[in-house]
Amino acid sequence: MISVTRKYSFSASHRLHVADFSEAENARVFGKCNNPFGHGHNYELFVTARGPVDQNSGLAVDIGRLDRLIQESVLSQFHLKNMNSDIPAFAKSVPTTENVGLEIARTIRSAWPAAFPGNWPRFEKVRIYETERNIFEVKNEKA
Amino acid sequence: MISVTRKYSFSASHRLHVADFSEAENARVFGKCNNPFGHGHNYELFVTARGPVDQNSGLAVDIGRLDRLIQESVLSQFHLKNMNSDIPAFAKSVPTTENVGLEIARTIRSAWPAAFPGNWPRFEKVRIYETERNIFEVKNEKA
Amino acid sequence: MISVTRKYSFSASHRLHVADFSEAENARVFGKCNNPFGHGHNYELFVTARGPVDQNSGLAVDIGRLDRLIQESVLSQFHLKNMNSDIPAFAKSVPTTENVGLEIARTIRSAWPAAFPGNWPRFEKVRIYETERNIFEVKNEKA
Amino acid sequence: MISVTRKYSFSASHRLHVADFSEAENARVFGKCNNPFGHGHNYELFVTARGPVDQNSGLAVDIGRLDRLIQESVLSQFHLKNMNSDIPAFAKSVPTTENVGLEIARTIRSAWPAAFPGNWPRFEKVRIYETERNIFEVKNEKA
Amino acid sequence: MISVTRKYSFSASHRLHVADFSEAENARVFGKCNNPFGHGHNYELFVTARGPVDQNSGLAVDIGRLDRLIQESVLSQFHLKNMNSDIPAFAKSVPTTENVGLEIARTIRSAWPAAFPGNWPRFEKVRIYETERNIFEVKNEKA
Amino acid sequence: MISVTRKYSFSASHRLHVADFSEAENARVFGKCNNPFGHGHNYELFVTARGPVDQNSGLAVDIGRLDRLIQESVLSQFHLKNMNSDIPAFAKSVPTTENVGLEIARTIRSAWPAAFPGNWPRFEKVRIYETERNIFEVKNEKA
Repeated sequence: MISVTRKYSFSASHRLHVADFSEAENARVFGKCNNPFGHGHNYELFVTARGPVDQNSGLAVDIGRLDRLIQESVLSQFHLKNMNSDIPAFAKSVPTTENVGLEIARTIRSAWPAAFPGNWPRFEKVRIYETERNIFEVKNEKA
Repeated sequence: MISVTRKYSFSASHRLHVADFSEAENARVFGKCNNPFGHGHNYELFVTARGPVDQNSGLAVDIGRLDRLIQESVLSQFHLKNMNSDIPAFAKSVPTTENVGLEIARTIRSAWPAAFPGNWPRFEKVRIYETERNIFEVKNEKA
Repeated sequence: MISVTRKYSFSASHRLHVADFSEAENARVFGKCNNPFGHGHNYELFVTARGPVDQNSGLAVDIGRLDRLIQESVLSQFHLKNMNSDIPAFAKSVPTTENVGLEIARTIRSAWPAAFPGNWPRFEKVRIYETERNIFEVKNEKA
Repeated sequence: MISVTRKYSFSASHRLHVADFSEAENARVFGKCNNPFGHGHNYELFVTARGPVDQNSGLAVDIGRLDRLIQESVLSQFHLKNMNSDIPAFAKSVPTTENVGLEIARTIRSAWPAAFPGNWPRFEKVRIYETERNIFEVKNEKA
Repeated sequence: MISVTRKYSFSASHRLHVADFSEAENARVFGKCNNPFGHGHNYELFVTARGPVDQNSGLAVDIGRLDRLIQESVLSQFHLKNMNSDIPAFAKSVPTTENVGLEIARTIRSAWPAAFPGNWPRFEKVRIYETERNIFEVKNEKA
Repeated sequence: MISVTRKYSFSASHRLHVADFSEAENARVFGKCNNPFGHGHNYELFVTARGPVDQNSGLAVDIGRLDRLIQESVLSQFHLKNMNSDIPAFAKSVPTTENVGLEIARTIRSAWPAAFPGNWPRFEKVRIYETERNIFEVKNEKA
């Protein structure tokens, strides 16, 4: 059994703002991140899969297949986008990196069976670096 | 004579779009970076000063003073901002990292004499990482 | 449930020396790190908290609050200090990075309830890089 | 209880090719990595041990001893080598980084008791970076 | 005037061996890098161009065009290859990273006018990291 | 003509304090770095040499020889040391990284002719990272 992690990256912008909060509450909770026009980050995304090593090919994960899954379901949605305006999931929730992580994990979980129909490899977790100082990890609880 | 470089960072968003270009021309020149709602980056900014080492203190640059100069003239303008909407210099020019680099170099050059009134240290150059793959350097030509 | 990790750094010096060891034993156990006048490192400290994401704010950890906790209880004690001479915890124990890790974990555990009085987020672990080659991790066992 | 991780590196070459596969199957499974003359990587190897901190020395792992174990059992076999031709374990299996990880974990597990004859520290896991985007982790299941 | 640097990477293998040297001489000059079956590296390649910023587009270098130039003239030749066997330039010279740097600089210089037919941007230099400890820089002397 | 840079590292401690300054002056100039017991850093040292590539060996610099020069003249003096107490050059001057850079450049310049007696390679410069945010460069002016 082995864990295989692949690193991706995307650049996106966001504004941390909750419509139901007062102006003062938004300022208190989000500080400068509540700036009306938003700001942005280079996000690094690490996706981890887990499985046995195939005895013939010596591989545990078909990386090409994983790349297509992530490109089609995640990067095409997030890369070079404004998350508040461009991503439907953030029409009603705020694109903090916590919520970005939960959303990306949900997206991968849904797309996984079509890309990896067998029992293995399984989707184990995502880790997102918002900056080199802020790191978020979501485990796939059914892995 | 020694060069001293100090690293800063800021997160900001931008949209690459020229009002005078047609839609097709904007798409051709800027590709996905022309996305209407913009996107963002973590920028790393390296500021280099050059000068002799003071024989008593063993220092060439007063780092506290440099930090205040950069905080007040650059970071307060750029960090957690939307460069198109929030920064006057980009009302008429497009915030490509080339233009961001020229603007930051101009800003530092203007603020330098008040912070460092003597002959040394001199402002030598800025280097900006837009991502770890795209790096821009502007020399202060009168250094 | 999400894990949020925040990176901090501090520069400190130490001497690896046990008063109860003979000179030969100190030399054998600690090698050049037993040098009488000590030496130093840039330590990188990663603090991980774990908790549910608040449905309104989209946050799992108030980073400003975590920063104050770490600044007041850890960095103010360790940054720019000689650990053998300046930190009471190392009056009787040797400031190996193992002991530094245990001491920082203990300090955070004590300060946590005042900073985060609710059930969540919980303090999960610290990871310390003494150099890029030597990495130490202490889990908060009651997390 | 603490985990101590030490980083090593080695440069080696490999060709991904299975003798029992047809040419088309090798091409489909391994893509350009099936190039007849092979290619190479700088591998980064992180070895993690786990144990209690000795109350006198403040150490959990004798790093000098770990370095000798890894140098003699792993690096001397892998560094500056062609894994297909130079390493017996890959006479019959293909040196994918999955198999390299399993082989290195097996090698460390065998050599561990001679280097660390007591109950602690225990060998916990290896993590290998084939590139900064491809990361493999093998846990020592009996740790 | 601004310098724009773009980072690329490739993985390749080489053997340091000069046919005209005796076995002893090869061993003395190249040490373990003379291993008959070779070894490999992840090379990082930084290509720097220099030019004025276009007043309309705010760009100094068309990155898409630079990417195609480097992909077609450099990466397609070097990535996932054995440099001794797969690259004609190394039929008679040894693929030390010095020679790799000179060869890549020559290749870019030849391909440049077709990709960038105007006066600007100019090709300024390449920098190659063989490992994070060994770094080679070749200036384009006519830049 | 090519530049070859090799990275080294050392861990050392220092106290920024000038005996001829008053207590207040030391505090004003050096801030917390004036702490009586000192503190420390992991320093990264990049040494650059420049020369033509030998047509037979394909090498510009004998790295083994450079490693011995740096080990014997620099690292043996600085690694795991307290610079104020252990290094004669800092008996009278303060070990700021400016002065450390000048001292290391002087040391390399003196030791160079014995290690590289021919016309090439020449010692070009040193760059020192005190932390990832503070970087110092000294050119060898006669290079």
